[in-house]
Amino acid sequence: MPINFKNFIKTQASSLKMNEFQDLDHIDGVSISTISANLYSKPRDDLVMFYFRDGANYASVYTQSKIVSENIKWNRNIKSKKIKSLIVNTRNANALTGLNGYKGLEEIAQEISFLLSKKQKEDEDHPKYVLASEILFGCTGTIGEKYPTEKIKKGISTLISKIRYTQNKLIWMKAALGIMTTDTKPKLAMEECEIGNKKVKIYGIAKGSGMIFPNMATTLGYIFTDADLSNDILKKLLKINIETTFNAISCDGDTSTNDMVSIFSTGKVKNLKINMISDKRIKGFSNALHSVLLNLSKRIVADGEGASKFITINVIKSKNEQEAKKIAFSIANSPLVKTAIAGEDPNWGRIIMAIGKSGVNVDIKKLSINFGTIKVLEKGELVNKYNESEVANYMKDQTIDISITLNMGLKNFTAYTMDLTKRYIEINTDYRS
Amino acid sequence: MPINFKNFIKTQASSLKMNEFQDLDHIDGVSISTISANLYSKPRDDLVMFYFRDGANYASVYTQSKIVSENIKWNRNIKSKKIKSLIVNTRNANALTGLNGYKGLEEIAQEISFLLSKKQKEDEDHPKYVLASEILFGCTGTIGEKYPTEKIKKGISTLISKIRYTQNKLIWMKAALGIMTTDTKPKLAMEECEIGNKKVKIYGIAKGSGMIFPNMATTLGYIFTDADLSNDILKKLLKINIETTFNAISCDGDTSTNDMVSIFSTGKVKNLKINMISDKRIKGFSNALHSVLLNLSKRIVADGEGASKFITINVIKSKNEQEAKKIAFSIANSPLVKTAIAGEDPNWGRIIMAIGKSGVNVDIKKLSINFGTIKVLEKGELVNKYNESEVANYMKDQTIDISITLNMGLKNFTAYTMDLTKRYIEINTDYRS
Repeated sequence: MPINFKNFIKTQASSLKMNEFQDLDHIDGVSISTISANLYSKPRDDLVMFYFRDGANYASVYTQSKIVSENIKWNRNIKSKKIKSLIVNTRNANALTGLNGYKGLEEIAQEISFLLSKKQKEDEDHPKYVLASEILFGCTGTIGEKYPTEKIKKGISTLISKIRYTQNKLIWMKAALGIMTTDTKPKLAMEECEIGNKKVKIYGIAKGSGMIFPNMATTLGYIFTDADLSNDILKKLLKINIETTFNAISCDGDTSTNDMVSIFSTGKVKNLKINMISDKRIKGFSNALHSVLLNLSKRIVADGEGASKFITINVIKSKNEQEAKKIAFSIANSPLVKTAIAGEDPNWGRIIMAIGKSGVNVDIKKLSINFGTIKVLEKGELVNKYNESEVANYMKDQTIDISITLNMGLKNFTAYTMDLTKRYIEINTDYRS
Repeated sequence: MPINFKNFIKTQASSLKMNEFQDLDHIDGVSISTISANLYSKPRDDLVMFYFRDGANYASVYTQSKIVSENIKWNRNIKSKKIKSLIVNTRNANALTGLNGYKGLEEIAQEISFLLSKKQKEDEDHPKYVLASEILFGCTGTIGEKYPTEKIKKGISTLISKIRYTQNKLIWMKAALGIMTTDTKPKLAMEECEIGNKKVKIYGIAKGSGMIFPNMATTLGYIFTDADLSNDILKKLLKINIETTFNAISCDGDTSTNDMVSIFSTGKVKNLKINMISDKRIKGFSNALHSVLLNLSKRIVADGEGASKFITINVIKSKNEQEAKKIAFSIANSPLVKTAIAGEDPNWGRIIMAIGKSGVNVDIKKLSINFGTIKVLEKGELVNKYNESEVANYMKDQTIDISITLNMGLKNFTAYTMDLTKRYIEINTDYRS
């Protein structure tokens, strides 16, 4: 299907309203509580618990780094089909902490297991034990420092005492704030949709790049739905939708030991059973999930360190999606392109350079480049009516769309990134002073 | 062979004396002349001619970018076994200039052919025609601007009138200055060695990354020797030695449409004939060539935009060189590592991150990290006597050596890079103001 170019661009730009927060409220089967476990020197919420009183189906994707944190190892070892709790701490990444780091998680999981089992006995008609093997961990913060097992363990009882069975927008905001490191804004998103004739909710929170010595950019994303979906379907939905959302963003091309995106379904809405991902009745949910993931991803980029501009790189009419993605990221990760955009300079020469170094065979004679709706290059040559001041004026926008049309096939890929500013360097060099 | 670690580090650091220039003088069979062809608004030498009155054997390596400039296309089309002239212009990259750019080179080559043939008739006992197909071009500068064919053509006769058959250190310095764009220092290097019992010289000049709107980093390197070596041997020597020199440096991970390194041998020294690259009698020459290439490469990195520190990344005891190289460049290209070093912060967490994202399987339990001679990580854990202030003190040096020992095999790779500073951002964003 041919792309309506103007609409394509318009949708990309207008869908980003970063200063608007959606109000997330109750989602049945999820309870949230947050506390300060004194992991920072100045107290702030640094420990967040998600409790699924009747369990939740789930699926996760983890960092592709060959060196992973202890909590990622723990999560990968979980074989349970249902998850009872997700617990997220900031300040300490529990990476390069060795056996002690892993054992810390074991101790904390046992504490949670004991105290949540007790709560089940108090609150439920048909109480069930909460097993340590039904708990997932998210960690973000410093690498290589001793994991603060005792401080976290000490916080668990307070965390559990704060659990309420009805959630409101305040607690979602607190959860989004509680998982932040040096993010400047909390990241929340929601959609509602239907499966069959049942209304379901999809809520999500995320954190983006943040660096406190000697830390790095870690991406965490947690999605919650009251829909009833199997682990297998959740896994496929996450896989399909992560590629063009969380895997389509780049702040500085670096990857963390701790990246993690999970989806949990409480099954409180008794929608019709979906057995196959090809079932058309799951399409609406899949689209809504994509919106939530994309919304969160864009918020992460927009809050990227030192970012002054949000950049969308569309690679259009590629032979296949893989090549489109290679070109899009070659541009999105190029320091020369990113500094040019920070300087509000429509430097298409650097874009050509980045296309060239991507390793993809392109036919320069077929190549077009647009800045927003302004065509700059057509069939590999500068357009005749090229008006530098018009393009320079466009570059003053906070939202920059760059489109590369290859005219070599029918596949597209869109990557999202930010500009590279002096502020980025300041944040990453000067934090000691 | 086990590496003597202390000596290894010492050699790396002490071999870099960037403010010392070697004096290049006469090399038989090469003539150099430089002029201003008024390619810049303020006159400076911008056109450099190398003339080989009796021809030179040669070999070249070119950019691996999929989009290349017109002069690279021209050079790749040259089938002649001998080269009579190399002509290098700055200010205009002759990239994305289409058919006009290529035709411009044709016109200039014809002009050079005619005027050098005339000079041959005047100067030589056995004059030979200089063919257009015996001329190579180097171009660096702005992409996409019309190639200044007329200005360059007009300069050729003056350029040829300035040819002298004896060279001195001044003309080499002028050549090195004449090929610069925004380099802050000329780059020259030399070695002398023997083939059999004949003394031969190896001289080289280079330019590094420089950006004037809308330009990018182009690397040019030209090596000249009076040795008598065949095109085949030159090609193999270049291939062997480029991997650990020009292909081991990274300033910002970006690649140009115009990169080019060539070696020319005038054959004026009648050394014994080398037929095979495995011939032991070429080893000394190969080592000396490596020194010249490495010296020039290091000068390019040290003059990288905004560089305040010269960084050497040693990856040691890898399963194979390819994996060592992947890890070395993953670290050398990481903005988080490079900003940390700019901030004089021994941030080994970010190094771990970069190793992890390289995609190479490493055994964390075997991993050691050194900053200079200070061991920070051993067997994947922070050393007991880790003294942060000692390492922080080391980070104040201008020359930073980071060594990653994988303990998984016997292969090593060393990459050279620079830190990422606010000055880099300034150069690349603010050049309009």
